[in-house]
Amino acid sequence: MLESLKKQVYEANMQLPAHGLVTFTWGNVSAIDRESGLFIIKPSGVDYDKLTPESMVVMDLNMNKIEGDLNPSSDTATHCQLYRAFSQIGGIVHTHSPWATSWAQAGRAIPCYGTTHADYIYGEIPCLRCLTPAELEDYEANTGRLIAGHFKNLDVEAVPCVLCQNHGPFAWGKDAHEAVHNAVVLEEVAKMAARCEQINPQVRPAPQSLQDKHYLRKHGPNAYYGQSH
Amino acid sequence: MLESLKKQVYEANMQLPAHGLVTFTWGNVSAIDRESGLFIIKPSGVDYDKLTPESMVVMDLNMNKIEGDLNPSSDTATHCQLYRAFSQIGGIVHTHSPWATSWAQAGRAIPCYGTTHADYIYGEIPCLRCLTPAELEDYEANTGRLIAGHFKNLDVEAVPCVLCQNHGPFAWGKDAHEAVHNAVVLEEVAKMAARCEQINPQVRPAPQSLQDKHYLRKHGPNAYYGQSH
Amino acid sequence: MLESLKKQVYEANMQLPAHGLVTFTWGNVSAIDRESGLFIIKPSGVDYDKLTPESMVVMDLNMNKIEGDLNPSSDTATHCQLYRAFSQIGGIVHTHSPWATSWAQAGRAIPCYGTTHADYIYGEIPCLRCLTPAELEDYEANTGRLIAGHFKNLDVEAVPCVLCQNHGPFAWGKDAHEAVHNAVVLEEVAKMAARCEQINPQVRPAPQSLQDKHYLRKHGPNAYYGQSH
Amino acid sequence: MLESLKKQVYEANMQLPAHGLVTFTWGNVSAIDRESGLFIIKPSGVDYDKLTPESMVVMDLNMNKIEGDLNPSSDTATHCQLYRAFSQIGGIVHTHSPWATSWAQAGRAIPCYGTTHADYIYGEIPCLRCLTPAELEDYEANTGRLIAGHFKNLDVEAVPCVLCQNHGPFAWGKDAHEAVHNAVVLEEVAKMAARCEQINPQVRPAPQSLQDKHYLRKHGPNAYYGQSH
Repeated sequence: MLESLKKQVYEANMQLPAHGLVTFTWGNVSAIDRESGLFIIKPSGVDYDKLTPESMVVMDLNMNKIEGDLNPSSDTATHCQLYRAFSQIGGIVHTHSPWATSWAQAGRAIPCYGTTHADYIYGEIPCLRCLTPAELEDYEANTGRLIAGHFKNLDVEAVPCVLCQNHGPFAWGKDAHEAVHNAVVLEEVAKMAARCEQINPQVRPAPQSLQDKHYLRKHGPNAYYGQSH
Repeated sequence: MLESLKKQVYEANMQLPAHGLVTFTWGNVSAIDRESGLFIIKPSGVDYDKLTPESMVVMDLNMNKIEGDLNPSSDTATHCQLYRAFSQIGGIVHTHSPWATSWAQAGRAIPCYGTTHADYIYGEIPCLRCLTPAELEDYEANTGRLIAGHFKNLDVEAVPCVLCQNHGPFAWGKDAHEAVHNAVVLEEVAKMAARCEQINPQVRPAPQSLQDKHYLRKHGPNAYYGQSH
Repeated sequence: MLESLKKQVYEANMQLPAHGLVTFTWGNVSAIDRESGLFIIKPSGVDYDKLTPESMVVMDLNMNKIEGDLNPSSDTATHCQLYRAFSQIGGIVHTHSPWATSWAQAGRAIPCYGTTHADYIYGEIPCLRCLTPAELEDYEANTGRLIAGHFKNLDVEAVPCVLCQNHGPFAWGKDAHEAVHNAVVLEEVAKMAARCEQINPQVRPAPQSLQDKHYLRKHGPNAYYGQSH
Repeated sequence: MLESLKKQVYEANMQLPAHGLVTFTWGNVSAIDRESGLFIIKPSGVDYDKLTPESMVVMDLNMNKIEGDLNPSSDTATHCQLYRAFSQIGGIVHTHSPWATSWAQAGRAIPCYGTTHADYIYGEIPCLRCLTPAELEDYEANTGRLIAGHFKNLDVEAVPCVLCQNHGPFAWGKDAHEAVHNAVVLEEVAKMAARCEQINPQVRPAPQSLQDKHYLRKHGPNAYYGQSH
């Protein structure tokens, strides 16, 4: 079932090591088929060079495994919560990519210092608090609930990624491919923001007018970047 | 038309990922044919592995597309302004290369700390101010005008690159190949300047006498580096 | 003798350059056959591209060479002491991997700043003191004795790596493969901890509750990560 | 003439990009044949992928070109001075490798923070002062004279590399291969020293007893590292 989507999710997972975002098995990509309400995710703890489209796991939004010989990623419950909360999201990525994870460990949101950031992400990249000891009981689902709660009244498409303190980043998009793209952007932006602060510890975020201009250059009805308009 | 120049521009664009200067499509190279007054530039938002010489876009200096099926780079108006302002320039590069962009985001000019810098760039690499909200209306052209204004009474060959605050670097040269070469030099110099300041926060720029000596070792009538003199 | 184990040790050694943990010959992996009490280790100062399974050296736990044409690694006495002290250990790695070595040179234990660390290592990664001038007489064996003394009443499986001040890291595991895996984790964790402190100099270690949760997610009777439970 | 040595020098030059020590043509290796008093060096400003053994330039110690179609490296006079001053030296390398150059630009000697450094270099790596305006007239030769003067009463084999302020590193060895090896060690040591100071700004050099032990482990009559003793 969903063979074409399995292939997409497989290929998106293979993009993580290709972009240098993962060490060992420290990452996972999923995508959802909204018609059937089923999502497909990488199996847990399997080496990337052992992955195949067939080894992907099919889940429903109540966390039942529908198809697959292997256990799904241990982060599946986080993905599930995000698909339930945000109907606009078609794909999700979690990694421990080093620069984004360093910001998450530092417990700081990433300010918007320039157009590389502003072209893809509107405003700072939030860093959500660590879970409480009680929340840790249901760690992965509560991570998803925390993210969903934060974005409840915000635009999940304008800010397609988030940091979870002491843990690492999640990114999303309209499909698995766009989610991986946003995870790469996040890592690049995280790297340049850290270096930028090293070069000028007094640096201030980019002017709001520049942030508006660059985000709207690529998003919304007046976008003019690329070939599709 | 201009098939040979298209091939040069194509090859120069392909040098950007080869030198690690771009992520995704975040860079573009152009070159001008001064006889016809036409310049050739990368299409907007096309993956590097999909580029061909034939996909390059031909523009005139009034921003009319003369040939090409695709939209030109969204930064085309910046390139256009620079070709109009500086007849010595034959090729231009824009990237978001990480170290140069980190300096641009930090809003600081890159001091000349040593001979690697002085061999190619005379004095510091300027960092130009962010555009005003009014200037943002015509973002790309005004970026070009700001650069042109800065270099009006300066030697655009002695300083073949610049940083635009909160944005990133531009580099240029007598042709597309030399422009890419200067973009690589800039990234390397930006990296070493940042590390140098980390190692010694009190570091001072290299003595003027050394800067003069090294620049003139490679430039001007008494140059003695390489095989051509 | 022990041909299968020689092959394992050879392959584990070859993983060091593949993971970017060594320059030149600056690393070595060993593994022990507990039944015979013999361990196998890389020869000293031989380039990785010249290594073969047959060139591995067989040693006993009294530092006698049992088989092999070449001298064993100069760090063999350290490996030997650790095998004698900890019967749970089946493989050991020593490298000068750059981030872990930078922490060792800095003389600091690596705090647990997040789940990447907590998934594999319980609590901080200790940094043991430099040897005294007297201890330097028998440098390699005393390095092993110092590590063994430190872990005497601790869980050597919960903290599968250590830093030796002014020197570098050692990592271990149930076999050579797992030891290399832990050496890679250590390097990644060391990198992110340094960057994390740069991003937020006031950063505090991750909450103990999170450290407990993540370590136990992968270790002990209630582990639920991966395919084996 | 000296075909075998040309091949060695060619191969040593090709090791510079392989080890990531050079961008473009920013490095050169030479070696000397002490019997004839001739040394062989890379031509100036030629791309590494265009180099051949036949393109190497043969020079005598009075800076006369003895054989070769191309100009020798612009740094030839520095190499020449060092061969004249130190009969123990058989090969010399100059690069702008990024970490070593960052220390040179910072104007600081690299302290010995650990055994990676101490295994190859005895004590700190000196950083020599910038040339005076008068000395700049004969820049390359005076760079060599400055290095020769510094090491006059020191052991050029115990410290096989040096930094020239605002410029970059030189390394040497008994032949071209060993000189490149030492240039790689220098870059690795420079990287770890910078990171080590970032991790612990109060870090102190390694104890003298450790420095003695590790240097003598690999050098001198009681060396016991590797296969040759």
